Amino acid sequence: MEKGTGMTTATKMVYRLDEGSAEMVALLGGKGAGVSEMARIGIPVPPGFVITTEACKEFYRLGHRFPDGLWESIVEKVKFLERETGKGFGDPRNPLVVSVRSGAPVSMPGMMDTILNMGVVDATVDGLAKLMGDERPALDAYRRLIQGFGNVVLGIEKDQFETRLDRAKKQRGLEFDYQLQPDALWDLIGQFKQVIHGATSAPMPQDPWELLRQSIEAVFTSWNNPRAITYREYQRIPHDLGTACVIMVMVFGNLGADSGTGVLFSRNPSTGERSLYGEFLANAQGEDVVAGVRTPQQLSSLSQEWPELYRQIEEKAGELERHYRDVQDVELTVERGTLYILQTRDAKRTASAAVKIAVDFVNEGVLTKEEALGRVSPDDVPQVLMPRFAPEAKQKAIEDGALLAQGLGSSPGAATGIVVMDPDRAVELASQGEKVLLVRPETSPDDVHGILRAEGVLTSRGGMTSHAAVVTRGLGKACVVGCEELEFNMAARTATARGKTIHEGDVLSVDGASGEVFMATIAVSPPAPEELSDLNTLLEWADERRTLEVWANADRPDDAQIGREYGAQGIGLCRTEHMFFDESRLPHIQKLLTVAPEASHLMREMERVRASLEEAPASERANLGRRLTEAEQGLATSTSVKEFNSSLAKLEEFQTQDFYDILKVMEGLPVVVRLLDAPLHEFLPNYADLRTEVALLLAKGDASAETREKEHTLALVESLREADPMLGHRGCRVGMTMPEVYEMQVRAIVTAACRLTKEGHTVYPEVMIPIVSHANELKWLRERLAVVAEKTRAAMGVSAEYKFGTMIEVPRAALTASEIAQEAEFFSFGTNDLTQMTFGYSRDDAEGKFLRHYVETKILPWDPFASLDTVGVGRLMRLACEEGRAAKPDLELGICGEHGGDPKSIAFCHALGLNYVSASPYRVPVARLAAAQSALGQLKSAL
Amino acid sequence: MEKGTGMTTATKMVYRLDEGSAEMVALLGGKGAGVSEMARIGIPVPPGFVITTEACKEFYRLGHRFPDGLWESIVEKVKFLERETGKGFGDPRNPLVVSVRSGAPVSMPGMMDTILNMGVVDATVDGLAKLMGDERPALDAYRRLIQGFGNVVLGIEKDQFETRLDRAKKQRGLEFDYQLQPDALWDLIGQFKQVIHGATSAPMPQDPWELLRQSIEAVFTSWNNPRAITYREYQRIPHDLGTACVIMVMVFGNLGADSGTGVLFSRNPSTGERSLYGEFLANAQGEDVVAGVRTPQQLSSLSQEWPELYRQIEEKAGELERHYRDVQDVELTVERGTLYILQTRDAKRTASAAVKIAVDFVNEGVLTKEEALGRVSPDDVPQVLMPRFAPEAKQKAIEDGALLAQGLGSSPGAATGIVVMDPDRAVELASQGEKVLLVRPETSPDDVHGILRAEGVLTSRGGMTSHAAVVTRGLGKACVVGCEELEFNMAARTATARGKTIHEGDVLSVDGASGEVFMATIAVSPPAPEELSDLNTLLEWADERRTLEVWANADRPDDAQIGREYGAQGIGLCRTEHMFFDESRLPHIQKLLTVAPEASHLMREMERVRASLEEAPASERANLGRRLTEAEQGLATSTSVKEFNSSLAKLEEFQTQDFYDILKVMEGLPVVVRLLDAPLHEFLPNYADLRTEVALLLAKGDASAETREKEHTLALVESLREADPMLGHRGCRVGMTMPEVYEMQVRAIVTAACRLTKEGHTVYPEVMIPIVSHANELKWLRERLAVVAEKTRAAMGVSAEYKFGTMIEVPRAALTASEIAQEAEFFSFGTNDLTQMTFGYSRDDAEGKFLRHYVETKILPWDPFASLDTVGVGRLMRLACEEGRAAKPDLELGICGEHGGDPKSIAFCHALGLNYVSASPYRVPVARLAAAQSALGQLKSAL
Repeated sequence: MEKGTGMTTATKMVYRLDEGSAEMVALLGGKGAGVSEMARIGIPVPPGFVITTEACKEFYRLGHRFPDGLWESIVEKVKFLERETGKGFGDPRNPLVVSVRSGAPVSMPGMMDTILNMGVVDATVDGLAKLMGDERPALDAYRRLIQGFGNVVLGIEKDQFETRLDRAKKQRGLEFDYQLQPDALWDLIGQFKQVIHGATSAPMPQDPWELLRQSIEAVFTSWNNPRAITYREYQRIPHDLGTACVIMVMVFGNLGADSGTGVLFSRNPSTGERSLYGEFLANAQGEDVVAGVRTPQQLSSLSQEWPELYRQIEEKAGELERHYRDVQDVELTVERGTLYILQTRDAKRTASAAVKIAVDFVNEGVLTKEEALGRVSPDDVPQVLMPRFAPEAKQKAIEDGALLAQGLGSSPGAATGIVVMDPDRAVELASQGEKVLLVRPETSPDDVHGILRAEGVLTSRGGMTSHAAVVTRGLGKACVVGCEELEFNMAARTATARGKTIHEGDVLSVDGASGEVFMATIAVSPPAPEELSDLNTLLEWADERRTLEVWANADRPDDAQIGREYGAQGIGLCRTEHMFFDESRLPHIQKLLTVAPEASHLMREMERVRASLEEAPASERANLGRRLTEAEQGLATSTSVKEFNSSLAKLEEFQTQDFYDILKVMEGLPVVVRLLDAPLHEFLPNYADLRTEVALLLAKGDASAETREKEHTLALVESLREADPMLGHRGCRVGMTMPEVYEMQVRAIVTAACRLTKEGHTVYPEVMIPIVSHANELKWLRERLAVVAEKTRAAMGVSAEYKFGTMIEVPRAALTASEIAQEAEFFSFGTNDLTQMTFGYSRDDAEGKFLRHYVETKILPWDPFASLDTVGVGRLMRLACEEGRAAKPDLELGICGEHGGDPKSIAFCHALGLNYVSASPYRVPVARLAAAQSALGQLKSAL
Repeated sequence: MEKGTGMTTATKMVYRLDEGSAEMVALLGGKGAGVSEMARIGIPVPPGFVITTEACKEFYRLGHRFPDGLWESIVEKVKFLERETGKGFGDPRNPLVVSVRSGAPVSMPGMMDTILNMGVVDATVDGLAKLMGDERPALDAYRRLIQGFGNVVLGIEKDQFETRLDRAKKQRGLEFDYQLQPDALWDLIGQFKQVIHGATSAPMPQDPWELLRQSIEAVFTSWNNPRAITYREYQRIPHDLGTACVIMVMVFGNLGADSGTGVLFSRNPSTGERSLYGEFLANAQGEDVVAGVRTPQQLSSLSQEWPELYRQIEEKAGELERHYRDVQDVELTVERGTLYILQTRDAKRTASAAVKIAVDFVNEGVLTKEEALGRVSPDDVPQVLMPRFAPEAKQKAIEDGALLAQGLGSSPGAATGIVVMDPDRAVELASQGEKVLLVRPETSPDDVHGILRAEGVLTSRGGMTSHAAVVTRGLGKACVVGCEELEFNMAARTATARGKTIHEGDVLSVDGASGEVFMATIAVSPPAPEELSDLNTLLEWADERRTLEVWANADRPDDAQIGREYGAQGIGLCRTEHMFFDESRLPHIQKLLTVAPEASHLMREMERVRASLEEAPASERANLGRRLTEAEQGLATSTSVKEFNSSLAKLEEFQTQDFYDILKVMEGLPVVVRLLDAPLHEFLPNYADLRTEVALLLAKGDASAETREKEHTLALVESLREADPMLGHRGCRVGMTMPEVYEMQVRAIVTAACRLTKEGHTVYPEVMIPIVSHANELKWLRERLAVVAEKTRAAMGVSAEYKFGTMIEVPRAALTASEIAQEAEFFSFGTNDLTQMTFGYSRDDAEGKFLRHYVETKILPWDPFASLDTVGVGRLMRLACEEGRAAKPDLELGICGEHGGDPKSIAFCHALGLNYVSASPYRVPVARLAAAQSALGQLKSAL
C-alpha cells in the first residue's frame, strides 16, 4: 500500500486474534498484538478480533469515514464470535456482549476511549439477565453501556451521569455501585436515557449494530483527543501512528463472589523484587480497579483465600514473563471461577526496579548483559540516585509530631511542596517556580498536565495500580495513594487527617517509598551505597562496552569527589569564576575591577613604550627612553597599580589553594581548568538597582561617604555595562585586554601542580581558554602564558606538565578549527554558548518568550538546549572535529556543555568520535550508560 | 634567494641607476626604481646608485648589521661616482657631495629619513665653497648636514638645532635661512657641533665614509620608526617590505638666482585639469619647498620669467607622463641654469582628480576603459559625491561677516569642526566623538595621527605641495594652506586674523576648494550634476562590465529616490521598524504593546480552542464548543483586543502609504521589504531611566495619574526586557508569537501593490522575514501570510505578485540553507548580524572594549564589521549559496548588510556569485565601480 494513496479494498483491515502475533504491534496496536500473541501461545483469552491501525489512519484520511469494506469485515468477524460462543449479537434470548477498546502501537494508559457491554439494549437485557442468572449485573452492564456510550460517543459530560448515580446511592444509603438493586438500576437506566434524549434530541439508539459502529468510530476519534495529544507530546510519541480497536467477547467479573477482576505485575514494579504483585477486586469489573474508586485487596491474599486460582494466575504470569522476556503487566477477570487473561504488556516500572530487573534477568540467564544494558533508559538513572528523606531528618519530623497520615507508597522518592488541589493551579504555581504537591481524592487522565508539573502526588483513594500510581511511576515522581484517613472538603480546598487540617498553600512532604505524609519540610540525602549495588553492576557492564570516556564538570573539590565516586575519568570543566563568586573572594575581585581602568591603562602604556623602544630608530630612542622612565615611575607610584597587584596576589592565593585541592582529589586524572569566562560586570551590583538606589539617596540629600562610594561603584558598573553581555567583553577578550588576570590564574594552576608533584602526586592540569573566535587570540595568549608557566616552574624547581587548549563555543571557532587546532592540544565543545550563537537565541530570554512556544507548536522538534541540535549546531561540531583532527591527529576532543549529560546528545558525541563527554557529577552514571548504549547501537544518532 | 635564510655574498645589493628600471620597484623602492627608469629613458638625473630593499631586510634579519659585502659594494659605487663627476669623496679640494635618501616600494611621503650634503666636513667645506664660487651655500650645506646627521642618525631632537637657528636669525634681524651670512653660519656650525658633543660626549665625526655608513644605517632603521608604522597601519601597507636607500650626487639649487628647486604635477592633482601645476623656489634646496617653510612661487610664473627653463620642464614632464601612462609628481632642481629631475612618481590626487584623469586618459587614447576603471579606488568615490558648502549657506556666512581669512584651497571638501592646535588633542577629542579641525602654522610628519582624526586642516604656511596639502589630498580631507594672514600665538593657543582671535575650542569652517576660512558652522549640500559628469561616464563603463547588480538600502521614498538616481537597480532592504519609530506612529505601536499581553493571550487561546475543536472527539466537543463561545465573547468584549486591533489598523494605514510611496518611486524595480525586526522594547522608554524616574516620583509621594501611567509602562518595559536583546525576542520570533503584526504588514504591502497595479504601475515587492534560524519558522509564516495576501488580493480584485524570502543572518540559517531554500524564493545575507553571531561579538559592546584593541594589535587582520571576514563568516555564506542554489537553482541571492557597500566585501560577493549587493544610497556608485573592478579581476577576493 502506498502512503497517502488510500487502502485498496483487498487490504485486510480486521484480524481474528489467532491470526495475529506480538510482532504485529504497529498494525494491531499493543493491546491487540498482545491478546493475539496470548491466544497463539495458549493463554486463556476471550474470543475476539482486532481492527487495524491502518484502518484508523485511513478513517482520518477519509475525513472521519470508514474505508470501503471495513464494516462488512467487522460484521463478518462478529458472526464468527457468534459461532464461537453460540450466542447472537442482538439476540434477545442469548445475547452476545462485547467490549470495544482502543489500543495504540505504544502504551498510552487511559488516554483513549473504551466502551463496554456492547450488545446490551432494551431487547437483550432480559436475555442477558437470564444467561447471568442474576438481573443485577445485567442491568448494571446496561447502565454502564448507556453511560459509556453517552459520554464517549455522544460527548455528554460524565458529571451528568455521575451525579445521578451518586444521588441514587445516597437516596438508598448505599456506598458502592454494585450495591444498587434492580429497581434502582431500572430507575437509573431511565434517567440516563432521558439525559441522552435531552442532549441529542433523540432517544438512545437501540440497534446494537449501530451502537457498535458508532463506538468504533469514537475509539478511532479518541486518538486525537487533547489529553492524548498532550501525553504524546510529553512522551515524544509520533502523532501519526493511529490506534487499533480491539473487540472481544465480554467476560464478567461482577457475577458474584466466584467472580472478580484483577491487575498484576509479574514482579514488583516499584522495587523490582521477584514476586507476583497486584490487586484483586471480587464481584467487580476491571474499570473499578483501574479507576481506583474502590480499594482492592492485595493479590497475594488470594494465595490463602483461593489457592487454586492463585496457582493458575502464578503459572500464567510466569509463562507470559518467560515468553516476553520481560516483566508483564496483566489484566485478568474471573467469571464464575474461570480465569481469563484480558491483556498483557511489558510493565512500566520505577527506575530502581528497571535496574534490578535487568540485572536479575542476566543472573537468571534470561538476558545477555548487552540486552540488559538496553533495558534501562539512561534518563531513569538519576531517579535511582535521587535523594531520599535523610533518615535522621525524617526521624526528627516524626518526633516533632509532623506525621500527618499513612498511605500506600506507590512511587518512591521524596517530595516536598506546596499543597494544590487542582491540576490547573499546579501548572500555574509551577510556572512561577514554586514546587507543588498535587493532593486530590484521586486522579484521572484529565489531571495529567498537573501531575507533569508537580513534585509528587498524594491521593486518598486508589491502589498501587490506580491512575496516580501508574502515571507517577512512569514519570519518576514520588506518589502516595490510598491515604484513606485523609478527608477532603473540595469546596473549602482543605483535607483533614488525625484532627489536623491542611489547606491549599500549606507545605507537605510525602515519602513515596514508605507512604508516609508529613506536615513539614524534610531534608533529603543521597541513597545508601547498598541501594546502588545493582546500578553499579550495570554501570560496570556499561564501562566494559563503551568507547567514550565520561568526565565531570566540577568547580570545587567536593563536587570533583562526587564525580570521581560516580565514575568520572577526569574533570572536563572547572569554572574559575565560580571560585571568584565566593564571599571571601568577591571583595578582592571588586577592588581589582575598581582600580583596573587606571592600572590597566598604565600597564598597557608601559608595554607599548617597551615595544616601540625595541624597534625604534636612534632618533626616537631618547624620546622613548624618557617616556619609559616616566611610565615606570607612573607604575611604581600609582595607587591603582598597587591595589590592582595586591588584589591579584590575594586572589592568586585563593586560586592556588583551589587548584591544589581539586587536582589532589583528581590525582592521576586530567582536570580541565577554564580561565575566567564571565563578563566583568557580573562581579558587581546590578546596574538598574544601584542606579535607582543612588538616585534615591541623592534625592534625599544624602552625601555620606557611603553614598559617594556607591556613586563611584555606579560609575564603574556603568562603564562595564553592555547591551548584549553574552556577546560582549568576556572570556579570552578580557584575558587579552587585561592579561594579568589569566597570568595569575596560570601561575596558580602551575604552582599548585608543582607543589603536588613535589609531594609525590601525579596530576594532569589542562588550561582551557574560553570564547575564542580567532586562532590569533589563542596564539597570543599561549605565548604569553607559556612564559608565565615557565617562570613558575623554574621558581618551583619542578617541571609539572600541562596541556593548553580551547573551548569551541563560538561558531567562528568551529568554522576555523584547522587554524585553531594549530594552537591547541584539545578542543572542548561548549555547546550551551555554541547553541546560543548558532541559533541566535539567548537562553535566558528565549525560554519564556518564544522557545517554549516553538517546542509546543513543533516549530522546533525539541529544545536545543536540552538535546543537541544535531542538524545545525551538530554540523559545526562535525566540521570542527574533522578539520581539527585533520590538522592535528592527536587532538583531544570533548564536550563540556550541559548536553554532555543528555543521552541523545551523548549518542551524537559517540558518533562524532569525541574522546569524552563531561557532565555534572550526578549525570556521570547517566552518561556511562548512554555511552555504552551508543557503543552497542541501542542509542542511535544520525551524524 | 630563499626567504629567511640570509643573502649570499653573490647577491647584488647595490645597483647603479643605469642598471635599474621601473619594474624593479620591490627591490629598488619607488624612488630608486623611478630615477633608474628616468636615467634609462634619457631624463636628466644626477648620477647615483641604489641599495636594495633586500639589503635592508637582511640588515634587520642580522639585528641591525650590514650584510657581508654590502659596504664594499657601496664603496665601489662611490668610486664610480667619483669617476663620473671627476670629484673625490672627502677630497679637500674637489669634494664629491651626495644625498642619502630612503625610498620604500610604496609611497610613504615624509615618513622616513633622508640626509643631505654627505661629504661636507671640516676638511672639505672650503673646497666646496670654491667649487660653488660662494662660501655661503657651502657653509649652509655643512650646517644642514650636521643638523640632519644629529637629528636622524644620533637621535638629537630637532628643537636643539632649530632654536639656535631661529636665535641666529633673530639676533641678526633676518627672516630666512638663506639670508644668514658666512660668519653667522660658522657660528651656527660651531654651536651645532657643541650640541652633538653634549649629546654624545664625542665630537662630530669627521670621516665622511663613517658618516655615510651611519647615515645608510639610519635610513634603514627609519623604516620602523613609530610614525612610519602608524602610516603603514592606516594605509594597510605590509610591514615587511623594507626600504631601499638612494645615493645620488647632490645638485644645488641654492647657488644664486640662476638656481632653484621645484615640485610639480603633470596635471592638477586637485581637479585633474590638464596643465602643469607646481611651485618653484629660487635659490633654495628641495626641503625648503616640502617643509612649507617659505611660500614658493607658482611654477606657471616661470613661463614668463624664465621661458627656456619652463619649456624644458614642460617637455620633460610630458615625456614622463607619456612614459608612465599616469600623472607624475616630479621633484626638480636647477643648478646654475641646468635642469635636473631628482624624482618622479605617480601623483597622489584627490578623488575628483582621479576620476577626471582616468576619463581624460581614455579620451586621449592613453588608457583603455578597463584600465581607467582600475585607476580609481572605489573608496574614493564617496569623496567625489561629498557634500560641499551649500552656496546659499556660504553666501549668508559671508554676508554675516563670518569670513575670517583666505588661504590656498589645497584639498577640496567642506569641513566644520572645533579648532585644536596640536595633534594629540585632536586625537583625544575625536575619540570622544567631537569633529575637530587641526589648525597649525604648518604640519609635519609628526602630526599625521592628528590629521587622520581631523575633519580638515588649516595652516598659515606652506603651498599646494606642503606636507599638509599632500597628506590631506591622499586622505580626502578638506585642507587650506598658506593662509598667511593667520597669526599664531602657540603659547596662548590662539590665532588672529583681520582683528578677530580664534581660540582652541571655537568652531571654524574651511572650504578646501576656495581656500576660504569662516568663523561659523555652514550647511552642506551635494555636488551639482555638472560636477559629476566624469564620474557618471566612468560608472557607465563600470555598468557595462559588471555582473553583480547593485541595489540600495532605503527605508523612505526620498532615500529610495536618491538610490535610484545613483543607479540602484532595486531596494535590497526596506526596514519597516524605521517607519514605526516615526513620531506619528510611535504612540500607536506603544499602545499596541501595552495591550498586547492580554489581547495576544485571548487571541492565541481562541486559536488553540479552534484547533482542538477540529480534531476533537465527540466526547470533548460539547466542552470545547462552550470554551469557543466563551473565547469568542472574551475577544468581542475585551478592551485590550479592541485597542490592539485599532492600533494595528492605524499602523496599517501608515504602512500602506509608506509602501505605496516607496514602490511607486521604484516602479519597475524590485523592493525587498523586511518585516518587523527590532526587539519590541526598542519602541518603549529605556528601562533604567524610567525605573529611576518612577522611584524618584514615588519617593516624593507623587501619586498622580501620570505617575500611575509611568508605573504601568515600567511594568511593561520590565516584562519586555531581555538580558541579550540581540539574541532575544525579535524578528520572526515576534512574527510567530504575535502573527497579527506580520499579517498587518503583508496586508499593507499587498494592498499598496494592488493599488499601484490598478493605477497602471508595475511593481515588484518582495517580503523578507528576518532572524530565521529554522526552516519551520519560514514555512509556518509563509503559509499564514499567503492566506492574508490571497484575501487582500481578492478584496482588491487585483493579482499583484510578490516574492517571499528570508534573511540569512543567523549562523544556523546558513548551516541549513538547503532546507530553508525550500521555503524561500530569495536569500539576503544580513552580514551585520551574521558577523555578530559568528564571532560572538556584539557590535555595540565590542568596538570600544576590545575590537579596536584587536585590530590595532593585529589579532584580527581588519575590523570584520567594516570588511567581511571571508574566512569564517564568508565560509557560512559560501555554504549557504552553494547549498541554497543546489536545492533551488533559481534562488535569488543578495547581501543587505553594510558590507554591501564595502569594495573588498563586494569582491567577495562577486566571487560567491551573488545576484546583487545592496548598499546605502550614497554607496551605490562605490558598489557599481567595485563590482566592475571585481568582474575585471582588478579587485580580487579569495573564496
